[in-house]
Amino acid sequence: MPGSRFEVVARDGDARAGRLATPHGVVETPAFMAVATYGAVRGVTPDELRALGAQMLLANTYHLHERPGEDVVARLGGLHGFTGWNGPWLTDSGGYQAFSLGERVSLDEDGVTFASAVDGTRRRLTPEGAVAIQEALGADVAVALDHCVASAPGPGAGGDLRPAWRDAMERSLRWAERCLKVRRRADQALFGILQGGADPGLRRESARATAGLGFDGYAHGGLGLGEAGAARSELLAITHAELPPGAPRYLMGLGRPEDLLAAVERGVDLFDCVVPTRNGRHGVLFTRAGKLSLRNARFREDPEPPDPGCDCPACSRFGLAYLRHLFVCGDLLGPRLASLHNLRFYYRLLAEARAAIAAGRFGAFRDEALAAAARGR
Amino acid sequence: MPGSRFEVVARDGDARAGRLATPHGVVETPAFMAVATYGAVRGVTPDELRALGAQMLLANTYHLHERPGEDVVARLGGLHGFTGWNGPWLTDSGGYQAFSLGERVSLDEDGVTFASAVDGTRRRLTPEGAVAIQEALGADVAVALDHCVASAPGPGAGGDLRPAWRDAMERSLRWAERCLKVRRRADQALFGILQGGADPGLRRESARATAGLGFDGYAHGGLGLGEAGAARSELLAITHAELPPGAPRYLMGLGRPEDLLAAVERGVDLFDCVVPTRNGRHGVLFTRAGKLSLRNARFREDPEPPDPGCDCPACSRFGLAYLRHLFVCGDLLGPRLASLHNLRFYYRLLAEARAAIAAGRFGAFRDEALAAAARGR
Repeated sequence: MPGSRFEVVARDGDARAGRLATPHGVVETPAFMAVATYGAVRGVTPDELRALGAQMLLANTYHLHERPGEDVVARLGGLHGFTGWNGPWLTDSGGYQAFSLGERVSLDEDGVTFASAVDGTRRRLTPEGAVAIQEALGADVAVALDHCVASAPGPGAGGDLRPAWRDAMERSLRWAERCLKVRRRADQALFGILQGGADPGLRRESARATAGLGFDGYAHGGLGLGEAGAARSELLAITHAELPPGAPRYLMGLGRPEDLLAAVERGVDLFDCVVPTRNGRHGVLFTRAGKLSLRNARFREDPEPPDPGCDCPACSRFGLAYLRHLFVCGDLLGPRLASLHNLRFYYRLLAEARAAIAAGRFGAFRDEALAAAARGR
Repeated sequence: MPGSRFEVVARDGDARAGRLATPHGVVETPAFMAVATYGAVRGVTPDELRALGAQMLLANTYHLHERPGEDVVARLGGLHGFTGWNGPWLTDSGGYQAFSLGERVSLDEDGVTFASAVDGTRRRLTPEGAVAIQEALGADVAVALDHCVASAPGPGAGGDLRPAWRDAMERSLRWAERCLKVRRRADQALFGILQGGADPGLRRESARATAGLGFDGYAHGGLGLGEAGAARSELLAITHAELPPGAPRYLMGLGRPEDLLAAVERGVDLFDCVVPTRNGRHGVLFTRAGKLSLRNARFREDPEPPDPGCDCPACSRFGLAYLRHLFVCGDLLGPRLASLHNLRFYYRLLAEARAAIAAGRFGAFRDEALAAAARGR
């Protein structure tokens, strides 16, 4: 793997603990990547991320291409120099934006055309362009451009999605080949992306063919977009059987703590999601005893920390009453402290999962974590 | 002075360096207090404030009375326990809100009636009530309720303001007496507030009479609301001649760095203002080389720190290009880092003023600081 090396250091059933050594440091897996869309995890500094347990961050290729542009980032020392986070970076490819931006996007065999969210101008993203942008950004791990479609019908829609899934899966394969052909950097790993919607056969075919192209790692694309949790676990298991066991596996864009634990059980190594920071901004905290909303009136005079035993900057210094007060008054410190707590919760959850795998007791750990969260406070 | 003790430790002309020892720590003066309206300096933690050089914070009595209520704050350990800032606190009295909230306020001899900004209900603030609320909040320094009016006519207004200034000044004196009569806490200093608009005679009369009542310190109210800088300096000098030289002097609500230096020259010891944090939120930084706007396109690829030689979390870790990018993309990290920088700039400016006074070279220091800022970058 150019620049990086991955090894599985422990297994417990299908769950595994690994070590991804990149040019900018080691990532102990399973690991969670906070989302730094424009090169910043909203409101949080690199020093704070490091203290919370962050190992690797994710940035969005499409957004950085628009602002400030990959040429500017490259001249300022790449993502590492530009942002001050000099640990490992992974960049997505823009495929998910092509899906999520919906009507502002058109797609053909050659690539994707966006109407810029910034100035409305036409922007073109091809497999070759996605690789070139990510090489300019200087990520430690880049991801091939894929054609992403939903894994379940949207509200009001219906019919058989399999033709669309097959079409997107096959196009993603052709784009994957084009990405591999133009890659240049010897210090940047490149991950392929699996598609195939919620169809086990298509997913298996995607995994087998993508693995046949020889990527450095494999990302699950198009999941968490409608399919049930049990179906997703099954799809992960089916596709993992087709992938080289020594390559890292990355579940893109998911999700809640229970989603992460279920995927770790099936052998996923890497995660990213906006769930901890987005929930934090809205005053929703993940704790050992389940989720809580800081706006709840019952916390009005509660001096206890949100999650006793948590060592984050919110729990170690502030009580529920004050944190609630910050949200009621609209002070920026509230969303900030809540985001810091949730990030710490995620980093700690995966560090504990890692330790449990190494100790051969991942199943028990998962059951305890889920039971504590279900009991609530 | 109940709970606290003030001493002047050095003089340079009228400028002075002092030491205000409070029940929660010492404040070396001249000192700047960041504004924590609802008990938080927007988005900044107590640990960060301490690292930046904060000594004492200001909270707003009227706002905390509305949310969460002084009874709640008292039960949670007062301002110190509730907010986690366990250094010295000063609370204002609500008089400025009675002025600034304009049409939602009516005033009579007994006190002020507000329409609550939160729920529209009628809230009454009297001199006795203002003292009781501040005692419940547990500030180290409280201030008497005053009747504040503008020191210059508003746009479109005109006529002789002196009758209104006299009226407000005399009412402030009567309210000051009522405040002194009901104070109870032996650990809370109480400052009187001078009024009198921009009229030297009224200001002198206010200072003499307020000093005659015997407060622990004296605040200049109603300045920075229209009068010219030179006129303000003159008013400060005239009133200081009437105040006991060993009592601390506090200029409320001002201002720009040049305003602070001019007031220090006249012997002011304490300041508060939203200027550094409000400017920071809008991307305007105070630097050794004057003000700059982070949104300026000329910083697009500038890797230099905003203020070379500054040791704040923004300047020590990030370049102008990245800080600009954060504002362009609307990331919360931008306003946060800019606020941290500006606070550090203010704390450092006053620490350097203090050192210059002790060294007998305040005039030279002030001239150098103003000249560097005027040269720009």
